[in-house]
Amino acid sequence: MKQHIQNLKGFRDFLPAEKRVRDYVADQIKAVFIEYGFEPIETPTLEYASLLLGKYGDEADKLVYNFEDRGGRQVALRYDQTVPTSRILAQYQNELPKFFRRFQIQNVFRADKPQKGRFREFTQCDCDIFGTSSPVADAELLSVYFAAYTRLGITSLQIKINDRQTLMETISPFATDQVSVFSIIQSIDKLDKMSETDVVTELITKGLVETAARETLAATQSATQSENLQQIIAAAVALGVPEKALVFTPTLARGLDYYTGMIFEGNIPTYTAGSVGGGGRYDNLIGELCGRDIAAAGFAIGFDRTVEAVQQLGLVPSTIRSGPTVLVTLFDAAGQTASLQAAATLRQAHIATEVYPKADKLSKQFKLANQKGIPLVLLLGESERTAGTITLKDMRSGKQITAPLAQMVEIIEKLS
Amino acid sequence: MKQHIQNLKGFRDFLPAEKRVRDYVADQIKAVFIEYGFEPIETPTLEYASLLLGKYGDEADKLVYNFEDRGGRQVALRYDQTVPTSRILAQYQNELPKFFRRFQIQNVFRADKPQKGRFREFTQCDCDIFGTSSPVADAELLSVYFAAYTRLGITSLQIKINDRQTLMETISPFATDQVSVFSIIQSIDKLDKMSETDVVTELITKGLVETAARETLAATQSATQSENLQQIIAAAVALGVPEKALVFTPTLARGLDYYTGMIFEGNIPTYTAGSVGGGGRYDNLIGELCGRDIAAAGFAIGFDRTVEAVQQLGLVPSTIRSGPTVLVTLFDAAGQTASLQAAATLRQAHIATEVYPKADKLSKQFKLANQKGIPLVLLLGESERTAGTITLKDMRSGKQITAPLAQMVEIIEKLS
Repeated sequence: MKQHIQNLKGFRDFLPAEKRVRDYVADQIKAVFIEYGFEPIETPTLEYASLLLGKYGDEADKLVYNFEDRGGRQVALRYDQTVPTSRILAQYQNELPKFFRRFQIQNVFRADKPQKGRFREFTQCDCDIFGTSSPVADAELLSVYFAAYTRLGITSLQIKINDRQTLMETISPFATDQVSVFSIIQSIDKLDKMSETDVVTELITKGLVETAARETLAATQSATQSENLQQIIAAAVALGVPEKALVFTPTLARGLDYYTGMIFEGNIPTYTAGSVGGGGRYDNLIGELCGRDIAAAGFAIGFDRTVEAVQQLGLVPSTIRSGPTVLVTLFDAAGQTASLQAAATLRQAHIATEVYPKADKLSKQFKLANQKGIPLVLLLGESERTAGTITLKDMRSGKQITAPLAQMVEIIEKLS
Repeated sequence: MKQHIQNLKGFRDFLPAEKRVRDYVADQIKAVFIEYGFEPIETPTLEYASLLLGKYGDEADKLVYNFEDRGGRQVALRYDQTVPTSRILAQYQNELPKFFRRFQIQNVFRADKPQKGRFREFTQCDCDIFGTSSPVADAELLSVYFAAYTRLGITSLQIKINDRQTLMETISPFATDQVSVFSIIQSIDKLDKMSETDVVTELITKGLVETAARETLAATQSATQSENLQQIIAAAVALGVPEKALVFTPTLARGLDYYTGMIFEGNIPTYTAGSVGGGGRYDNLIGELCGRDIAAAGFAIGFDRTVEAVQQLGLVPSTIRSGPTVLVTLFDAAGQTASLQAAATLRQAHIATEVYPKADKLSKQFKLANQKGIPLVLLLGESERTAGTITLKDMRSGKQITAPLAQMVEIIEKLS
């Protein structure tokens, strides 16, 4: 077999600089999910193929990574987090609380054609509330979604919101045997990428007469907030979402056909690559998947786009951007113990510290600090040891300072 | 296809109570790895099968999950983290620093027969230093390994340590054409599970004469610390590992044949299920894997066992053991906004808070708190709203207290 010293196309390696940022973003999101009363679960990477196939539609079935395992079982890699969670809801129904609020941050796999921004393995961040169709639950989702971006420093998030129920009622009168409500919804959903004229043309191509196509659009655009949506928005505002962040958008459709109530989508005005995720209420889906009716609503954060936005907007903290905070140098055998003890003291103070592994030229040790993005280099040569001091070189400014050893932690905390 | 509403054998679902503990343990380990100057990387779940097959031995090859993907490529699921890292070292050699210190916490897959404590998908926590064979690097590994357990509250960790080089030199004179040094090492490695007599018997069965078998064991047991080991231990002590935690164990062998220097293994005296991981120096392996000589040393933490030990020893913090800290109740439409605003205030203060999704009988709301392990329930009825107070029910003691709304955060922080 040919030896491949490379990763598979559509799959990614994350080296430290990138992995640190991804972990930082995931950790912030996770912390907010927990603060908002959501609980983590984890499901296996592999499932019975029969659980996944037939759940996402024929086209999607072709993107499922499935194979026969060594025991002759048909198995498949996780394709999304909703279907495995529907299994959890069915399998552990006696153990789970009445109102189950779970989040799940795991990788999913799709044998899709790789292209810019589309990968075969990527991270999903899902948050859902099961077992209630209360508007308060919908508002809780809006508030945790908004809070996740606030935590990341993105306070300008705009949440477009609509009611799929109202949308369907508005569109129904225009649907025909040939052009279903969902087909019209899918065209309306393109309004943020296509002009109104193009959407009307598409509807006509699908089979609507021109007046019906225009009227559908006009009726959709002039629809007003449902009482349900008013209740959700009022509750979300009480929960701390700024009113101006919630933008009623009667033409927001969301592509997936399973939504039954509130639908929403997040956009960062200064980030133009597209929506950073969204979700809505889907009260019938879980019943179809697991054979037990469970009201549900939730959202997925677009993780890759969110990471990109955080980077583009300069919101990655400097401690995450750099490598360890301090490199402790080694000069000679006589000074090794003192240097290692200094490293131990810094780590006790939770300061990320690397030790150069052997006595070496100082220039080489500085070079390593630069290569790794370590901002501070600690020098403990013979003169420092005799004087009870340390010398610190700040690699960002090139400045060197000498200070008492006893103040080392305090000074480094100030500089980092 | 038959519908399977269950997980595959050997694969695990983690519901919130268990997932919280696993995340807690992983987060602590990760935080320590970072403080000790190790950097995170992530590699894909799928690799070219040719990268993995033939790397772990014939027996292990049978445990690799490999299959043909939809593009006709032979692919395989991650089997360990060392081989993908050797690919990283080869593929990104110009981007990586001279002394690369990485950690990696990801799941691996083995088509092994599931049994107690053995799963087909499990988490590995690897920490390695590449590019140097300095004793300081070995000491760094001992110190970060010890520190990870200290952070988890396990201060009694015993690290058995030995030098594979010395062990091989001690054993070599007794090896024969029939019984190799590695075969003897594998028998010696069983000394913590088998009696000396049984190990001698095994060596005789393998083909050593009785005197040689006894003398091998005696020579191994009386071997003294190599200078290399003395240097490593001195450096580890300078780095903060208590001297009594490092137990020179001349019979420690570690099963894998690729070790070339220091080897070690961690044991928690009060946890009897077995070693909680270990590692050592393996200066030749990376060269064999990626065709480029790179000195290396590292360890893997036994994640499942470590999680179990932390639980058995009662070291899981109460905030991790319980669900969200507060359940905010809803009484009536009139009080909804005040309750939701209280929830927003608690979350602002980073207090994990769930909101009951609708006005309901108080008994039902208390029941949910009990089901979810939520210790505190917040009541904001009409009388509280009028008086500007809150009532808090502590579900652990059953006690109820009333306090000014303005002191809510302060009181809850004290109680939680």
